[in-house]
Amino acid sequence: MVNFKTSPDQYKHWKLSFDGPVARLTMDVQEDETLADGYKLKLNSYDLGVDIELADAVQRIRFEHPEVRAVVITSLKPRIFCAGANIYMLGTSSHAFKVNFCKFTNETRCTIEDDSRASGRRYIAALNGTASGGGYELAIACDEIYLVDDGNSAVSLPEVPLLGVLPGTGGLTRLVDKRKVRRDRADVFSTLAEGLKGKRAKEWGLIDDTFTTSKFQNSVDERVAQIVNLRNENEKASGKDAGESRLVGTGMPALPAAHGIKLHPLEIQSTEDSRDYKYVSLKFHRDKRSVDLIVRAPQGELPTTTDEIHKLGDAYWPLRAYRELDDALLHLRVNEPEVGLVCIRTEGSIENILAVDKTLAANRDHWLVREIVLQIARVLRRLDLTAKSFFSIIEPGSCFAGNLFELVLASDRSYMLNNPEETVEVALSELNTGAFSMSNGLTRLQSRFLAEPKKAYEAFAHEGRFDTGAAEAAGLVTFAPDDLDWDDEIRVAIEERTSLSPDALTGMEASLRFAGPETMDTKIYGRLTAWQNWIFQRPNAVGPNGALTNYGKPTQAQFDFKRT
Amino acid sequence: MVNFKTSPDQYKHWKLSFDGPVARLTMDVQEDETLADGYKLKLNSYDLGVDIELADAVQRIRFEHPEVRAVVITSLKPRIFCAGANIYMLGTSSHAFKVNFCKFTNETRCTIEDDSRASGRRYIAALNGTASGGGYELAIACDEIYLVDDGNSAVSLPEVPLLGVLPGTGGLTRLVDKRKVRRDRADVFSTLAEGLKGKRAKEWGLIDDTFTTSKFQNSVDERVAQIVNLRNENEKASGKDAGESRLVGTGMPALPAAHGIKLHPLEIQSTEDSRDYKYVSLKFHRDKRSVDLIVRAPQGELPTTTDEIHKLGDAYWPLRAYRELDDALLHLRVNEPEVGLVCIRTEGSIENILAVDKTLAANRDHWLVREIVLQIARVLRRLDLTAKSFFSIIEPGSCFAGNLFELVLASDRSYMLNNPEETVEVALSELNTGAFSMSNGLTRLQSRFLAEPKKAYEAFAHEGRFDTGAAEAAGLVTFAPDDLDWDDEIRVAIEERTSLSPDALTGMEASLRFAGPETMDTKIYGRLTAWQNWIFQRPNAVGPNGALTNYGKPTQAQFDFKRT
Repeated sequence: MVNFKTSPDQYKHWKLSFDGPVARLTMDVQEDETLADGYKLKLNSYDLGVDIELADAVQRIRFEHPEVRAVVITSLKPRIFCAGANIYMLGTSSHAFKVNFCKFTNETRCTIEDDSRASGRRYIAALNGTASGGGYELAIACDEIYLVDDGNSAVSLPEVPLLGVLPGTGGLTRLVDKRKVRRDRADVFSTLAEGLKGKRAKEWGLIDDTFTTSKFQNSVDERVAQIVNLRNENEKASGKDAGESRLVGTGMPALPAAHGIKLHPLEIQSTEDSRDYKYVSLKFHRDKRSVDLIVRAPQGELPTTTDEIHKLGDAYWPLRAYRELDDALLHLRVNEPEVGLVCIRTEGSIENILAVDKTLAANRDHWLVREIVLQIARVLRRLDLTAKSFFSIIEPGSCFAGNLFELVLASDRSYMLNNPEETVEVALSELNTGAFSMSNGLTRLQSRFLAEPKKAYEAFAHEGRFDTGAAEAAGLVTFAPDDLDWDDEIRVAIEERTSLSPDALTGMEASLRFAGPETMDTKIYGRLTAWQNWIFQRPNAVGPNGALTNYGKPTQAQFDFKRT
Repeated sequence: MVNFKTSPDQYKHWKLSFDGPVARLTMDVQEDETLADGYKLKLNSYDLGVDIELADAVQRIRFEHPEVRAVVITSLKPRIFCAGANIYMLGTSSHAFKVNFCKFTNETRCTIEDDSRASGRRYIAALNGTASGGGYELAIACDEIYLVDDGNSAVSLPEVPLLGVLPGTGGLTRLVDKRKVRRDRADVFSTLAEGLKGKRAKEWGLIDDTFTTSKFQNSVDERVAQIVNLRNENEKASGKDAGESRLVGTGMPALPAAHGIKLHPLEIQSTEDSRDYKYVSLKFHRDKRSVDLIVRAPQGELPTTTDEIHKLGDAYWPLRAYRELDDALLHLRVNEPEVGLVCIRTEGSIENILAVDKTLAANRDHWLVREIVLQIARVLRRLDLTAKSFFSIIEPGSCFAGNLFELVLASDRSYMLNNPEETVEVALSELNTGAFSMSNGLTRLQSRFLAEPKKAYEAFAHEGRFDTGAAEAAGLVTFAPDDLDWDDEIRVAIEERTSLSPDALTGMEASLRFAGPETMDTKIYGRLTAWQNWIFQRPNAVGPNGALTNYGKPTQAQFDFKRT
């Protein structure tokens, strides 16, 4: 079973250090500390375990070290930054594991980009040696890339020429869409096993600059100092308390001097058929290949000021509940492949959820609240991109309101009980208007009402909560069976869904969930990931004569050259 | 070998008739007239042969019947419009054939949509019976859909529940992106084998209206008359000659009263290693798995007025050359799977190509010139979407100018000889500024210079032709080897390219060719097609226990329920 929880004192492959406004994330992969048997993590190559640590480190920088303005990602190994995903790990992994591995590593890259875009931290890839494959993909997730000019070090994407697969973590899309490398140059680069060194790499836009070995450290340090000073000056110029202002002229949120909060380990209790967190539970129905995912609302007194929120730290409901939801989703993806359908249920007080949203909305300029809201948005995007079906089940006692109503909107379908004798309600909050954008850049309500945009405004204009009739009339739920039909209808819907081809469902859901515009993120998930999944099961890659299978062996790949 | 040439007198499955401004395309598929053995085309189901006729019919409407303002697509079979792609054909086809079949049928749908958008003809799907799968996908390619309300007829996409694959011709994307059906309803619809009938289908936006059997014919006729009358009134109101005006207030080009031109069969001479048209040749190097695709410029006197162009008809160079290029591309896709690399070469006078472009640009408001330019754009998009590598080889005597320079921009790479003793030149024309947009909505120059948009303007501002040095400086070509290195460099590049995994190249090219924005078209090709390709080789679809394999057999599909 893959465990997604870790913390810096448990890291095996990364060193995370802080020097005032600068964080350093240094890669030093331990060859033998692998997640599975059968391969060694040589040359700073990585498996899922290495990336779980990286994802954790970025989360911790965001919550525990808000004073950080620049993050330098580099390596402790001489002449090598990172050799990318371990080939032998890929060669021995199942198709499903490879797909989930690529998805998670890309989500980690997206979290870095989200931090840069939304929280204003600048990520610097200091390539002290060669960055190949996933190593270069990590670099292009950063804002700036500097490569040592030592006559040897290069950046490369050797997947196509060496392995017969694609760079699996968004590399090709980031190449032409983020760095906007000319497509013919991208074509040459992506078929050149040895990659490109400093001068040519800079000319083609693959890196931002290159420095000789003797000047490398100083030049990177100077650039980092520049970034930090620029931020400081902007904050002074703004004349406001750094914790609540936005940087003048940059549109970027200010980075606060405030102390961070501590992210404690999640407490999880598991049995064969359940996995319980404080606010989230999974209840498995293995014979039905479905699971109930239950989210519970907070109880008791809720904080209303940023001081109170800061004091609660990671015990504050929205942070804790969504960290738990995130872990639950990752667990379902990787450790529960047979579960095809997730029935989302909620329990608790709508009033409390709306109170939470009100507090979050009122304090969105505060660094911690901003990070909490961004974290909720990321977890919801993780749900959008999970290859399981989601049904929301809206019953008496549920609390699908505000942030939790996003779960209904993210579901493939929703069922809301229509019982004249027992009120069932859902509700919207201010946060549904734009705090939680999908990967396509739209809110989930906008995505839902592409044909009739005014229905989104009407829903917001609605006074108070929606009972079942009102929710159905507003187009907020899919079906509203009455109490006589309810049990049968839900049962049949679950049975029908889990009887369908899991592959066809994955492709169908990936096509239906992202109507409207596409962004770099959706292109990576839709276009690139789908192609990679296709290639990952082609005999030319994974057959006995395939390139991935034969990598590093004395035998050579033999291709069926028919083009498809 | 699949032959893509046909004409109405050869049609087996469609009847094309004209009544003044109305064309009727009536489907009446002949069960036994299949392209291959092993299946019967029951219930108006189709194979590639049926769609080749449809594609031909739409082309002929555009060129031979410019007076047509509305096209009604319906069926001669009682109670059935079209049952979609034939399942037994799919079940017995190779993976590559399935993929190419879906791509071609979608391109036919795109040609219908291009005609509607760019030439202002309105397509009406008159569903006199059930439209399922590809039958409904054909309907949603039309502008309006009317379904008979006979208590039985329905629209449906039963691929996921019945076959374990996706609707293969863009159906899911058109559902949520074109018709903007709410995603939860699209989810329900796409998993409901029996589909939805009139009232519900209309409520969910799957069709535009439904009429009882007795009123169906009249109601459709009335709607068609409305469309035709509206067009007539708009043309009168514009007070201009219909052949050259745009419809007042609609932004749509006027549809002319002028007589169409005749599209004659292409003349092709083939040997084992060559395929020669008048202006296009294919020369195969089978040992190298590559082909030279040569396009020749026109010679002699060129027309400059629309009267002269109309008199030349389909003998006019741009129409004939690009019809030939289109056929050559389709031939390479379907009949030459082992050929992985296409080296594009041109021969002839740059001056003549620029003269053609000047005439086309000056007369773009004339219906025939507009159709010719739109046809060139479609053929170039077919090239963009062809799963082969393309290298442009620019040598002395070549004529990569204006419309033919798009071939360089569409190529994955270009090589231009740098020889001080022999001038090699390329040139741009006005048509490169926007006449030939890619599926992503950008021109190929815009797509090329995403990082430096001003380079596109600089290229246009350049006086006269570009010699090799100027072309390289302007960023218009990838490499400019000198004459000493030329032969070796081209040879090595060809050898290296064709040694790579054909699958990895397909995925890589699909990712690098479409940087920048995505449109419904690119979403269909990128996201949906890639997922379908993945599913098309999964055991859950095509394995011995797969749903596609077992369709119609007494045995039932057995799924591996692991979600990927």
